[in-house]
Amino acid sequence: MNTIGYIFRLTTFGESHGAAIGGVIDGCPSQLKLDFDFIDKELDRRKTAQTSTASQRKEPDRIEWLSGLLDGVTLGTPIAFMVRNEDCKPADYEALKDVYRPSHADFTYEQKYGLRDWRGGGRASARTTLPIVVAGAIAKQILKGKGIQIVAEVTEMGDAEQAKNEGDTVGGIVECRIISAPAGLGEPMFGKFSAELAHALFSLPAVKGFEIGDGFALAKMKGSEANDTFINKAGRITTPTNHSGGIQGGISNGNDIVFRVAFKPIPSIAKPQKTVNRAGDPCEIAIEGRHDVCALPRAVVLVEALAAMVTVDMERLAR
Amino acid sequence: MNTIGYIFRLTTFGESHGAAIGGVIDGCPSQLKLDFDFIDKELDRRKTAQTSTASQRKEPDRIEWLSGLLDGVTLGTPIAFMVRNEDCKPADYEALKDVYRPSHADFTYEQKYGLRDWRGGGRASARTTLPIVVAGAIAKQILKGKGIQIVAEVTEMGDAEQAKNEGDTVGGIVECRIISAPAGLGEPMFGKFSAELAHALFSLPAVKGFEIGDGFALAKMKGSEANDTFINKAGRITTPTNHSGGIQGGISNGNDIVFRVAFKPIPSIAKPQKTVNRAGDPCEIAIEGRHDVCALPRAVVLVEALAAMVTVDMERLAR
Amino acid sequence: MNTIGYIFRLTTFGESHGAAIGGVIDGCPSQLKLDFDFIDKELDRRKTAQTSTASQRKEPDRIEWLSGLLDGVTLGTPIAFMVRNEDCKPADYEALKDVYRPSHADFTYEQKYGLRDWRGGGRASARTTLPIVVAGAIAKQILKGKGIQIVAEVTEMGDAEQAKNEGDTVGGIVECRIISAPAGLGEPMFGKFSAELAHALFSLPAVKGFEIGDGFALAKMKGSEANDTFINKAGRITTPTNHSGGIQGGISNGNDIVFRVAFKPIPSIAKPQKTVNRAGDPCEIAIEGRHDVCALPRAVVLVEALAAMVTVDMERLAR
Amino acid sequence: MNTIGYIFRLTTFGESHGAAIGGVIDGCPSQLKLDFDFIDKELDRRKTAQTSTASQRKEPDRIEWLSGLLDGVTLGTPIAFMVRNEDCKPADYEALKDVYRPSHADFTYEQKYGLRDWRGGGRASARTTLPIVVAGAIAKQILKGKGIQIVAEVTEMGDAEQAKNEGDTVGGIVECRIISAPAGLGEPMFGKFSAELAHALFSLPAVKGFEIGDGFALAKMKGSEANDTFINKAGRITTPTNHSGGIQGGISNGNDIVFRVAFKPIPSIAKPQKTVNRAGDPCEIAIEGRHDVCALPRAVVLVEALAAMVTVDMERLAR
Repeated sequence: MNTIGYIFRLTTFGESHGAAIGGVIDGCPSQLKLDFDFIDKELDRRKTAQTSTASQRKEPDRIEWLSGLLDGVTLGTPIAFMVRNEDCKPADYEALKDVYRPSHADFTYEQKYGLRDWRGGGRASARTTLPIVVAGAIAKQILKGKGIQIVAEVTEMGDAEQAKNEGDTVGGIVECRIISAPAGLGEPMFGKFSAELAHALFSLPAVKGFEIGDGFALAKMKGSEANDTFINKAGRITTPTNHSGGIQGGISNGNDIVFRVAFKPIPSIAKPQKTVNRAGDPCEIAIEGRHDVCALPRAVVLVEALAAMVTVDMERLAR
Repeated sequence: MNTIGYIFRLTTFGESHGAAIGGVIDGCPSQLKLDFDFIDKELDRRKTAQTSTASQRKEPDRIEWLSGLLDGVTLGTPIAFMVRNEDCKPADYEALKDVYRPSHADFTYEQKYGLRDWRGGGRASARTTLPIVVAGAIAKQILKGKGIQIVAEVTEMGDAEQAKNEGDTVGGIVECRIISAPAGLGEPMFGKFSAELAHALFSLPAVKGFEIGDGFALAKMKGSEANDTFINKAGRITTPTNHSGGIQGGISNGNDIVFRVAFKPIPSIAKPQKTVNRAGDPCEIAIEGRHDVCALPRAVVLVEALAAMVTVDMERLAR
Repeated sequence: MNTIGYIFRLTTFGESHGAAIGGVIDGCPSQLKLDFDFIDKELDRRKTAQTSTASQRKEPDRIEWLSGLLDGVTLGTPIAFMVRNEDCKPADYEALKDVYRPSHADFTYEQKYGLRDWRGGGRASARTTLPIVVAGAIAKQILKGKGIQIVAEVTEMGDAEQAKNEGDTVGGIVECRIISAPAGLGEPMFGKFSAELAHALFSLPAVKGFEIGDGFALAKMKGSEANDTFINKAGRITTPTNHSGGIQGGISNGNDIVFRVAFKPIPSIAKPQKTVNRAGDPCEIAIEGRHDVCALPRAVVLVEALAAMVTVDMERLAR
Repeated sequence: MNTIGYIFRLTTFGESHGAAIGGVIDGCPSQLKLDFDFIDKELDRRKTAQTSTASQRKEPDRIEWLSGLLDGVTLGTPIAFMVRNEDCKPADYEALKDVYRPSHADFTYEQKYGLRDWRGGGRASARTTLPIVVAGAIAKQILKGKGIQIVAEVTEMGDAEQAKNEGDTVGGIVECRIISAPAGLGEPMFGKFSAELAHALFSLPAVKGFEIGDGFALAKMKGSEANDTFINKAGRITTPTNHSGGIQGGISNGNDIVFRVAFKPIPSIAKPQKTVNRAGDPCEIAIEGRHDVCALPRAVVLVEALAAMVTVDMERLAR
């Protein structure tokens, strides 16, 4: 369950403060000359500290490539990579070892596994999304060769500066657009393009909503308002409106695939909160330290990455 | 891609006006005495014509059980079942054979497969969801034995009576609640309980949005408002609020799992619409005949069914 | 676990004396005009009573096609089919209800599931292989379009006539050849062409051995004897010898893929045998009735069918 | 396709002379205190140079654990590990860069991928089996807790000393025994215990045959000779003979599961061989350097490892 994809598949591993975070990409086409600069740029987009909304943690994120490449060209064999967790200060987290932080995964992981890596969120840390950026960057490179682009942006976000002063955090919405994907991608029934996107996006921490096209707004429309009529535009059948978000019956119709993802506020807040510890005793915590006020700026590249991975997979299955 | 689930798996087959619609359930526990009355009642909930919002199509939906049972008890082997498509009048659809109905899957199926079963929507028809109800009813029976319940209801719906008079259709929202699921279900990273639910629900026709807990509303909250603090309630650690919808870090926390699904209006409307035919020539259609004004009343049991199937699967994986 | 294949996938269902035996083929290409005569001929090859080595059970094996077809052409959607079990006389098996037949699956099924369908072997009956023939026939048709052929034959078999007189049964070996498969099929590591064939063939009842190329004989050779040297034959690189059976490093080399499958004798013998019943009490049985002396003649088409299905899948994955 | 297993899953990566060889184990139970000494001992069993039949390559095989552990205890999250390829002299292989070694994967990899890592066999090198030993050692530890043991041995091998003098290599047979596995493991139809073992074992380089119980010898027996009659042994139903190798109908019967694997001779021989190069021109090669005369001594631990992994998976699925 730490693997995503059918043909283009990513398996990730790593805890926030274990030895390393990394992934194995299986099913990447051979003979692709990887654009390492682009991968680094994508990683920079995820990196901390670049804006006032993000935390101060320094993550050099230097990728070590372990396999699957010969002189920077893909061999068709698994591409393994990792980033060492250099900035490891478990002592910072000692105080939280026995406390269940509200709306974190501390309690649920312990319920599931009987133990958890309490150092910085362990496997549930946002840091574990790093391999997704790497796989997404490679997926984007594959898509580029097919003329397909992925572009996301923050379309809604709370007032981060104010929240910061209050020791609070904010959530928001990221909108993503898959541009120039051909019609006919996606599988009917249980492999719908929309379903695969929803599944992938809900893999990100803090995601609590996903909608495609006009999404929840469609629930308030009439059929005559919601339908996308077909026209013949210079010999190409298309729809001038795009309430459907480019997907009909689970399959792409050639229009932009447009979806939105809702992120809850980061649960680590400096404001004091009541909670309980492992023994069930009430206690109060104030989560100090290097934490973002808002995950949204970092999340944009993650949303794009997962969209790219799903698109590569759908394209591959449609052959 | 016509299969859903990891251990408790449903494979469905059938087109709206082919010989039959059916499914194969693999991974159902043995020695379960199936409650056929309950399955029939669940099918009735999906059936047409019971309300003024639904179409007039008569579907007896008599299940033929093909395998996997001995004297009504599950053998542990695949449970195959089908319903014959008796009420088949392809002539009704002849006029639509070469026309791309707006916001239907006609165009996308043709782009994908080069042909389509044009009789009543073929594989993309809402009728193909029938096997989900059967598998869901069996899943509910399994969950009942574990004290877990699934209850959904329509929480938002357009004005169906008015739409009917206008030859139009309406959408809406279904809210579902998984009650008394134990903490610790769901897999981290790419098998999160929320992600599996989103994937499953997006398999239903007309679904365009999915949110869990407070969902999209969380995007506007602050962390201090969105967090669910833990308390010790008579020796059991729980959260008095449930903004998270029972899922933290992708894993159930023992609280109700609450999610909402947005359905677009049914695209088959009686009002005349502009579109194009296969040749790309503009034309006008008015979809007459037996069509629902709103899918929501029928959808409730489908939402419950998929939630039940996913819950059985998550419970099974957590052992 | 009743599904085989990655892209071209067959799910089977049915017990020997349940309502029906059948399957669902997912991932079959669209726009294929099925050759129903060929499918029937392949089913005839599996049918009983054609030779003195086979039992007297009459199986009309009339396929009902349930989905996935429009005017005999594949739609790309799941192809479901079934054969009703008409010749059902459970009374014949009543005597065996509580007895564990030696080297049958009676005991192991009960250990696994807590109960079993005791009528004619239930899910473990050789009759449940029928859907494999159907899927194999379709796979062969796909391969034919690519110039690939599958041919199997019995290369070793005990003296059936003598065994029949003695109330005994015999085993044997089937050799199969996949002809004109292109080089480059099969995946390295855990998806080797040879591994997929071995997995598929071991799905047949009574299979106890599988070898590729010179197989077990290679264990006695030296490298200099076992190696297949490459030559340039009119511009095409090939090997004049084929000790490897067409597979090197798990991937096809363009030569014939040759493998052999060992079948044990059918365990149902007329000769009296000692065994125990469910209570653990010793008893003696003599399995009367309609049983083959040798499974080999029927098995040939099954071996071909599975080889064809695997080849279609490997070809599809290699794109 | 570089992943094996359903619940207990191993994904491997690495080429012989790339940066590292490693794996990711997903689905390992949490709260298992890993026995690192045992893992090292198992790796030693695979290591080179310990006998005169093996090559001189020095492989320290020092495992770096990357994730999934806290103080040596499994977290339930993916366990990633790797071994660096320190002894890398690509120059040794330069001469073979454009030559297709007989019965190696050079030619087939190039046909499949368009390129290959020519340094020491790349992904097809026997060195890439190292992660299997690690996963197998962990699987054995899990099985030990359930009282299940796995023991393999070389039962047939050519004359290695003589072959060495002749610049040749030899093959052989490994027999493996899974002891004290409970009855009821394995899935019917396409997930038979025997089929999963065959699939796993054929993943090893040089494997060309697999048989279970009496295997190919059963093809020459009569039913009355091949059947395993049941007896009641002190209240436990078992079979005094074990022609079936512990598997009936694909499911374990509680007896030892016994299988044999045939290995071809290592194709790298010092004797001069004729072959062709990438251009299709004939040439002669004599493969000098550090190569084993026989893979069998190293293979024993690999056979056990795969058997252990499959057994853990079957046990997990049977719950």
